[in-house]
Amino acid sequence: MRTVITGTGSFIPANKKLNSDFLDQDFYSDRQVRIPAEGADIIRKFEEVTGISERRYADIDMNATEMAVAAAKVAIKDAGVDPEMLDQIILAHNFGNVLTDTIQSDAVPSLASRVKQALGIRNPACIPYDVLFGCPGWIQGLIQADAFFKSGLAKKCLVIGTETLSRVIDRYDRDSMIFSDGAGAVIVEALEGKNSAAGIISASAQSYANDELNYIYMGMSYAPEADKRIRYIKMLGRKVYEFALKRVPEAMKDCLDKGNINIRDVKKIFIHQANEKMDIAIIKAFYLLYGIKEIPTDIMPMNIHVLGNSSVATVPTLYDMVKRNEIANQAVHAGDVILFASVGAGMNINAICYRV
Amino acid sequence: MRTVITGTGSFIPANKKLNSDFLDQDFYSDRQVRIPAEGADIIRKFEEVTGISERRYADIDMNATEMAVAAAKVAIKDAGVDPEMLDQIILAHNFGNVLTDTIQSDAVPSLASRVKQALGIRNPACIPYDVLFGCPGWIQGLIQADAFFKSGLAKKCLVIGTETLSRVIDRYDRDSMIFSDGAGAVIVEALEGKNSAAGIISASAQSYANDELNYIYMGMSYAPEADKRIRYIKMLGRKVYEFALKRVPEAMKDCLDKGNINIRDVKKIFIHQANEKMDIAIIKAFYLLYGIKEIPTDIMPMNIHVLGNSSVATVPTLYDMVKRNEIANQAVHAGDVILFASVGAGMNINAICYRV
Repeated sequence: MRTVITGTGSFIPANKKLNSDFLDQDFYSDRQVRIPAEGADIIRKFEEVTGISERRYADIDMNATEMAVAAAKVAIKDAGVDPEMLDQIILAHNFGNVLTDTIQSDAVPSLASRVKQALGIRNPACIPYDVLFGCPGWIQGLIQADAFFKSGLAKKCLVIGTETLSRVIDRYDRDSMIFSDGAGAVIVEALEGKNSAAGIISASAQSYANDELNYIYMGMSYAPEADKRIRYIKMLGRKVYEFALKRVPEAMKDCLDKGNINIRDVKKIFIHQANEKMDIAIIKAFYLLYGIKEIPTDIMPMNIHVLGNSSVATVPTLYDMVKRNEIANQAVHAGDVILFASVGAGMNINAICYRV
Repeated sequence: MRTVITGTGSFIPANKKLNSDFLDQDFYSDRQVRIPAEGADIIRKFEEVTGISERRYADIDMNATEMAVAAAKVAIKDAGVDPEMLDQIILAHNFGNVLTDTIQSDAVPSLASRVKQALGIRNPACIPYDVLFGCPGWIQGLIQADAFFKSGLAKKCLVIGTETLSRVIDRYDRDSMIFSDGAGAVIVEALEGKNSAAGIISASAQSYANDELNYIYMGMSYAPEADKRIRYIKMLGRKVYEFALKRVPEAMKDCLDKGNINIRDVKKIFIHQANEKMDIAIIKAFYLLYGIKEIPTDIMPMNIHVLGNSSVATVPTLYDMVKRNEIANQAVHAGDVILFASVGAGMNINAICYRV
């Protein structure tokens, strides 16, 4: 049995939010002190570190479920599956549907149930549920599907990541410029037959939840006058950076070791689009674990420059775009060994080694 | 391989909220019209239908995570497992930690990650994640653990259900009196060896997400003056009742059929504590599917009278109480065949047939 991605899809909101849109934004430090630098300087430095020049925000009347449905429809069509044959809809998110005129999250019923309804699926044996695992939630959803396939309890799953981070950010916090909205989805199937070797080769997941628990958390606005009852997504940026730099390469190596794959055979690495400098540093550290000082050209497709960090949606969106030849100089071919990897709140890390 | 519950635990908040505490509460209909009946009459009718005379609310400074930790500690001690050996912490909830001075939910990082930290577990291979599946979430967590065991990817899991419904109810809605707070947990292990037949025999799950999607949902308060931006848990009571009465018995029968178990061999049924009249009607309908008109004495332990409906926490709490002989005339013995069953938002249904 092989666990094969047979279709991909993504939804990228049309609304572009440019770095220049933040020129007049006042930013505050975590001590609620106004940052004295000019807007243009703050943005220049931000772009230098994160690589982000623009990001997308969902329309005000669109929620995380609707983005998930849009991505799912594309993946279903791409796979050519009958949605009624799906055994599970596994949907990763962190904030549910965030109501646009309030700060409330809504995940009752689960977003996966809502996707099922929107897809018009009537089969009661199609089980929808949401998984919360921080930004690595979509990869964890794939690991779950793979476990159900191996147990013989399922054969076809829709695995989605969707998030509207634009609705949980503190606009007085410079980090808020990192975050964006989007959804990505795949159809994954348990396939038999030896005319292809495509499928998941190995997977690895780790959780560090001691001091690391609070590296990404819900906290108060940095603005001195802010409503103290409202919480926003917050990061201890330096802690996250140092943690990811050490732990993500380890997870990727663990994944290759489990799959008995030589690093030289890895053709592409689809890594969570968190921060360009961090992602490059992670890849360099990964290759250094094998004593390789030069990372291969074009090994790491990226879309963070124009799409920002959409949490659970980054990896499936990136894979979908490369599959569709929408990123310059990036492509995957049948037989290629690729890596998916992510890191996020928890702190959680995971990686999947996959043969296209 | 058998999937065996080796330890149970629950946390029941100390704060009792009596029906008489609602005597002076104004209630409104879903059309925002004040219900003209006397408080005493409303409460009498409420108790007659639901069986609930009191329920528990968490202390204001306690959240869903902390209740989960308390229940987990008891289950871990009961099982005698080293927490560092846990492969997964699967935590079912619907609303995360609801901040007491606001209406915000907080599930970043996931509640399971927070439980892992509170238990002091350092092993990075212990993977914590949250599952959202409505009230049947805890049973679904057990099904997930079983799938991971069957796939060979895990051997020991902590499965928790925790919820603070008292923080998401509209007090102007009579249904709000149904809901309560609590947490239940089990340790479940993949065991080999033939000196026992204990373990999961079979499982069944269904999702009906067409018209049913909105039977349980987040809606505005029934009070005419209420803040329209705030949503509360709402039910279409009659729809839920009719749905559950038809679908839950089917799922329970499907579960017995899969396990090739004779209904006469079922010793106890641990059903989601949603509403006493509904639960009794479900059990009657279930036996009627087999042409049995008299339900066996003491087949269905209940604690809804004093604990209300704590969503994902009801089934594990009920099982824990019976295991500890805390419910009059109720006990389970080694070798007993029992059923767990639940129904809730989605609408989702599931059942597990289990040998003690």
